[in-house]
Amino acid sequence: MSGVGKFKISQIGVVRRQHRDEDVNDRNLVSKIVIQRKYAEGLKGVEDWSHFYVIFWMHEISDEKKTLTCPRCGADAPSVGIFATRAPVRPNPIGLTLVELAKRDCNVLWVKGLDALDGSPVLDLKPYPYWVKGEWIVVTDYRKPEYFGKTHE
Amino acid sequence: MSGVGKFKISQIGVVRRQHRDEDVNDRNLVSKIVIQRKYAEGLKGVEDWSHFYVIFWMHEISDEKKTLTCPRCGADAPSVGIFATRAPVRPNPIGLTLVELAKRDCNVLWVKGLDALDGSPVLDLKPYPYWVKGEWIVVTDYRKPEYFGKTHE
Repeated sequence: MSGVGKFKISQIGVVRRQHRDEDVNDRNLVSKIVIQRKYAEGLKGVEDWSHFYVIFWMHEISDEKKTLTCPRCGADAPSVGIFATRAPVRPNPIGLTLVELAKRDCNVLWVKGLDALDGSPVLDLKPYPYWVKGEWIVVTDYRKPEYFGKTHE
Repeated sequence: MSGVGKFKISQIGVVRRQHRDEDVNDRNLVSKIVIQRKYAEGLKGVEDWSHFYVIFWMHEISDEKKTLTCPRCGADAPSVGIFATRAPVRPNPIGLTLVELAKRDCNVLWVKGLDALDGSPVLDLKPYPYWVKGEWIVVTDYRKPEYFGKTHE
């Protein structure tokens, strides 16, 4: 395994927001994911799950914007690396958001809570939660940085 | 936005399992993620989080293996699409697993619960859980398919 691997990913669909100027961070908003017809067969049965991970491409992040340090660090937060944050300006601008499936209409999914911009290419959908060997992995006992209480809440 | 978008992703590190023949689905096992030196700066502060999403490339999935239908469906489970499953033989073989960070040693992370094969290229790390507008998104009220109780547990 070389350390310089590069891989090609293909778009399976696109995010369509209801209003182009809406706040993508409003978890109450519903957006559409339009899956390409050639992948629509893969959606059979998704409506049996209430929640999904949407993996998408943050297409507005140019190479020039990418960084290894938190872009908002400064006076009110410690200087941390990009992998300790969810900032989009990371080496691979892969977005990951847990959404609620409101409804499916053929190759169109209506999802609640997606923070992707209008036009974002969708790369994959995975049902939530993760499971293995009969166990459902839902972690509620987690530790977050101490500085979060002061700067992000 | 074209419907035929293709994007290039770069490997930021590699998964190293402690034993090549171990059961990758054993959530108690600890594996190493070796981040490339040029990306190591991005790890600053990751140890303040207990859990991470690891996004990796399932490098042993060839184009011939990819499918849109659940590969294990048959007598004991309904025939569903690939996006209603976590099967690796999907259009984009992107792996996503929530792991616990056991320790960090410079550019090496020791993580518990990673189901990636030895040698899997790592694409991104994101802290868990997701947050937005001061809210921590941990979904415990979810619905899963009825057939799961019979066939997967």
